Amino acid sequence: MITGKNYIGNTLSAKGATTYQTCNPKTNQPNEVHFTEATSEEIDQAVHMASQAFTPFQNCSGAKRSQFLNAIADEIEALGDTLVQTYISETGLPEGRAKGERGRTVGQLRMFAEYITTDEWRNPKISGESKELRQYLIPLGPVVVFGASNFPLAYATAGGDTASALAAGCPVIVKSHPMHAGTGELVGSAIQKAAQKTGMPEGVFSNLNSSGIEVGVQLVNHPDVKAVGFTGSIRGGRALYDLAAQRKEPIPVFAEMGSVNPVIITNNALKEQGETIAQTYADSITLGVGQFCTNPGLILGIKSEELSSFVEDLGKKTAAIDAYCMLHPAIHSAYEQKGEAIINEPETTVVAAHQGDRDENYAQAKIVTVSGDAFLKNSKLHQEVFGPFSMVVQCDDEAQLLQIIGGLEGQLTGTIIAQEEDYKDLSPLVERLQNRVGRIVFNGVPTGVAVADAMTHGGPYPASSDSRFTAVGSQAIKRWVRPFSYQDFPEELLPEILKS
Amino acid sequence: MITGKNYIGNTLSAKGATTYQTCNPKTNQPNEVHFTEATSEEIDQAVHMASQAFTPFQNCSGAKRSQFLNAIADEIEALGDTLVQTYISETGLPEGRAKGERGRTVGQLRMFAEYITTDEWRNPKISGESKELRQYLIPLGPVVVFGASNFPLAYATAGGDTASALAAGCPVIVKSHPMHAGTGELVGSAIQKAAQKTGMPEGVFSNLNSSGIEVGVQLVNHPDVKAVGFTGSIRGGRALYDLAAQRKEPIPVFAEMGSVNPVIITNNALKEQGETIAQTYADSITLGVGQFCTNPGLILGIKSEELSSFVEDLGKKTAAIDAYCMLHPAIHSAYEQKGEAIINEPETTVVAAHQGDRDENYAQAKIVTVSGDAFLKNSKLHQEVFGPFSMVVQCDDEAQLLQIIGGLEGQLTGTIIAQEEDYKDLSPLVERLQNRVGRIVFNGVPTGVAVADAMTHGGPYPASSDSRFTAVGSQAIKRWVRPFSYQDFPEELLPEILKS
Repeated sequence: MITGKNYIGNTLSAKGATTYQTCNPKTNQPNEVHFTEATSEEIDQAVHMASQAFTPFQNCSGAKRSQFLNAIADEIEALGDTLVQTYISETGLPEGRAKGERGRTVGQLRMFAEYITTDEWRNPKISGESKELRQYLIPLGPVVVFGASNFPLAYATAGGDTASALAAGCPVIVKSHPMHAGTGELVGSAIQKAAQKTGMPEGVFSNLNSSGIEVGVQLVNHPDVKAVGFTGSIRGGRALYDLAAQRKEPIPVFAEMGSVNPVIITNNALKEQGETIAQTYADSITLGVGQFCTNPGLILGIKSEELSSFVEDLGKKTAAIDAYCMLHPAIHSAYEQKGEAIINEPETTVVAAHQGDRDENYAQAKIVTVSGDAFLKNSKLHQEVFGPFSMVVQCDDEAQLLQIIGGLEGQLTGTIIAQEEDYKDLSPLVERLQNRVGRIVFNGVPTGVAVADAMTHGGPYPASSDSRFTAVGSQAIKRWVRPFSYQDFPEELLPEILKS
Repeated sequence: MITGKNYIGNTLSAKGATTYQTCNPKTNQPNEVHFTEATSEEIDQAVHMASQAFTPFQNCSGAKRSQFLNAIADEIEALGDTLVQTYISETGLPEGRAKGERGRTVGQLRMFAEYITTDEWRNPKISGESKELRQYLIPLGPVVVFGASNFPLAYATAGGDTASALAAGCPVIVKSHPMHAGTGELVGSAIQKAAQKTGMPEGVFSNLNSSGIEVGVQLVNHPDVKAVGFTGSIRGGRALYDLAAQRKEPIPVFAEMGSVNPVIITNNALKEQGETIAQTYADSITLGVGQFCTNPGLILGIKSEELSSFVEDLGKKTAAIDAYCMLHPAIHSAYEQKGEAIINEPETTVVAAHQGDRDENYAQAKIVTVSGDAFLKNSKLHQEVFGPFSMVVQCDDEAQLLQIIGGLEGQLTGTIIAQEEDYKDLSPLVERLQNRVGRIVFNGVPTGVAVADAMTHGGPYPASSDSRFTAVGSQAIKRWVRPFSYQDFPEELLPEILKS
């Protein structure tokens, strides 16, 4: 069922000579199918078809595009166990996670389908004494999507970027993630089927295989590409941002990148519920082997007996959680290297770190602790370690805590854990934290990102490349549209939603 | 009354050694006051003060910021004739224009004051079964504004960028335009007075003198600056965009830049009302000596007797309009040079161009015509000539006209002039034009940009650096804000607008 070919519009195509395989991290063996990297000619063809499809796709009614999105959801579900097994073979993640992520992906598609059923989302506005100005949102043009390594479904081929761009009326070209090319092709086939069944113009979607950077570079540099969506590392996102900014016609890149997701815990909270918090955080740090962009990588408190006990507790509870397989050998070795580098900084004390033998690609959680002083002085300690890693910073006092928060790089989330008696003193912390993050969670964990109207999944750089947008929730559609005004237009030439 | 100093917050400061004067283009003589360029230390101080002012300013209620904006409008009006005479001495523009632009500027401030009186503009959203997610828009931080040469009031010191950024809750640092530094200082003094009267934190506004590029470069590179607004040339806007994109933390730059504002006239329209259109366009091309970003620099029609007569008519009517003084010797000489360069291209035919003597800095309108073929083949003909210049392109047929439109760079506006009998055939043109422009005007002229909710003043690059925003109208505030979410927040810690 998986061919290893590219989808150039509806056509399966494999003109290239370079092939690659995905890896099953549990067995540490390559999976069977050989994927053929897209050639320069195939890339051009995909972009050309997307450009040709743009106007007819843009002219489809919301109701028709909505049918398309729902059909994609149906076709993904129709892939059944084949999709689940392919997902598992390419990620090592358990079946429950595969099914959960599939549910989230189809749920997201159906949410956007519902959202665009009427044209209200286009934010129609009419101004002027004789109603001479009429504005609504229109799509930018073909969008290139780079999926994430850690969400082969929800943030990839038919994930949030693709769903929101198609909802907006933008054709999409996906640069398939090499770690889960099979999952990508299957989902690509579902999108193609849905496009045909609902009468979409060919070229509205293409899926290009790529194991190196060339395909992505050519796509971002193509003059007919009008925007880019990316989820992944700071290095990768920044490289694409830089490319796009250097074009003759610069284009917007929404890159959702790194975040250590600071968590601030008050001593009152530790006093009342220290053990519970330790368990909750041991679970959150190791959830999905820590491979979430909202993983809590930094925990801050003020030096005290309670904090010392908490650190000890967290270490014990985290160490008690079994090691599990990471997504890919490369991700596992980066985790070990970066974790070691931080452990080797002289200021850090290890609280939990497995030292013995483990199966290949299996990661055990690491917890370290440092003083507030050390954290302030050593910016190496601020770097994200992607995986089940967290650092507890023991601050001298509230002033130091606030100084650390104010000096953090931009973050997707910040979390505050406090007791009711703390509320009256929290304003300085909330203010400081708000200007560094996209979302503040109260008495909870940052992992888990709801697909909702009021969700912000983004934040100041480097959490995202443009904090003015969110990658998750209905508002994610705003990344791919622009306002457009008709002035003194004859009623009969206006789109329905802008008629008087 | 004008000191030539910088406003660093409330303080008049002139620590630098470099000074410059503005020029009266009518007399071609320098104006009296010597302006002192801001030093590196003064720039740092202004940014530091803006950073310090950010949180208190952000925390001001909308009602309080609204008072501030209204007070700025009052104080600008209180400058009375001093402002008008300074404006005239620095631009050569007539008194009516000075007063009209002042009216627009204070009107815009009052519009934003009204817009932010309640917090509804923050787009509050509540999601989730237990209403656990609550989102609204928050300001980005200190904004640097580069005003335009051609609107010393409406697009400068207290113009649209400043008004929208202050409305959003962002402190503003203006890099004063060297051609109208006196007007800028006067308006700056009005802003300072208003800030003091309404109890705003010091540093919420600074005004820095600068005749070269150094001040702007240092400002855009400053890590505490979080966004940039610019109105001016493609070269200037692109340079700032590039600087900002190369920062360690890239920041958004909204630059409103060049546009030739294509106008398409059908032969039916020319048949019915050719002479009227010629007069209307002679007036629009020469309005404000053509020094508008929405000046109609490109007129397209399909070869016919009607089009030939129209070209002749337009030439005669344009030549009959008196030459007038441009804003500055540098702008005037650029106009003459760029106009000559196009006239010297072998494919162009001059329809109207004054050859004899004129007062210094006075510009007479130029009209040229070319074939559709020539325009398609020679991209030099696509460049904007800032001033009273327009080119009529005589296309072979509709297919060629559509090809030309589809190949144009991004534009602020496009205009269609047509008769009712044309309507049924206009879809291909409207579709094509819509994807190249921010606003389509029907049976009118592009000059004149209403400050309204439904206004789009922006467009695909290079009309603006990011087509997803508008520089004019209430929606201009969106350039300076980002979504932010509270999750599971205690009711008492939520801002008023997000409480249940």
